[in-house]
Amino acid sequence: MKLSLNRVGSPYSFEVSNETTICKMDASESIGGKNTGLRPMELVASGLAGCVAIDVLRILEKQRVETQLFKIEIQAERREATPAPFEYILLTFQVDEGLDKEKLTKNIQLVIDKYCSVSASLDQGIIIETKVVS
Amino acid sequence: MKLSLNRVGSPYSFEVSNETTICKMDASESIGGKNTGLRPMELVASGLAGCVAIDVLRILEKQRVETQLFKIEIQAERREATPAPFEYILLTFQVDEGLDKEKLTKNIQLVIDKYCSVSASLDQGIIIETKVVS
Repeated sequence: MKLSLNRVGSPYSFEVSNETTICKMDASESIGGKNTGLRPMELVASGLAGCVAIDVLRILEKQRVETQLFKIEIQAERREATPAPFEYILLTFQVDEGLDKEKLTKNIQLVIDKYCSVSASLDQGIIIETKVVS
Repeated sequence: MKLSLNRVGSPYSFEVSNETTICKMDASESIGGKNTGLRPMELVASGLAGCVAIDVLRILEKQRVETQLFKIEIQAERREATPAPFEYILLTFQVDEGLDKEKLTKNIQLVIDKYCSVSASLDQGIIIETKVVS
């Protein structure tokens, strides 16, 4: 892994890039951010959702289960202090109507507990909950 | 915080968005990714670098220290297993020639230890090292 983070505007506008992609980052408005990008904690929560999404899709492929719709809503609560780490993250999966939601919920939990490198990189005190809807 | 992660292409092309910004995400090539975005673990490392960057810039502002150049290179090593969490992250800061690098290094360490919400959300076993160059 090799990434580059560049400050592209004052006070806190950044671009982070790997070999193919640029993503814009900014601070929260409460400290002077200008809404020009994702915030650092949003990037972390996005990484968690993406990691779980990929591993869940791999399991669905092995089970030959298809879903046209695959969307995750990410919500999070943080400690009200400095620093303000995550206390709780809720991932709400939206998939096709016909899918076995109970089985999918079990697969998602399995991924979070055993496969996902992002969840394994986070403080294990953070509560990660999931829901499946259609 | 409210984010949405959408699958936009097969097998693992995603877009994650907050109220203003969209960022592309993809899986690593080793599992079939197509290099259409940042990878989940890259997003997490980017979030760490961005969080530290913002807090360090706030300290520099308070100290009335200016730097035209403010860039961070992000490198990381991960466990060679499943899951493969971060073991080591190196943030290399590039700033203007004239800056007091020793003082900046101390400020960066202070931010990682006491202020940054991303570092406080990560597994505390991960070694985070920093370098300052110009």
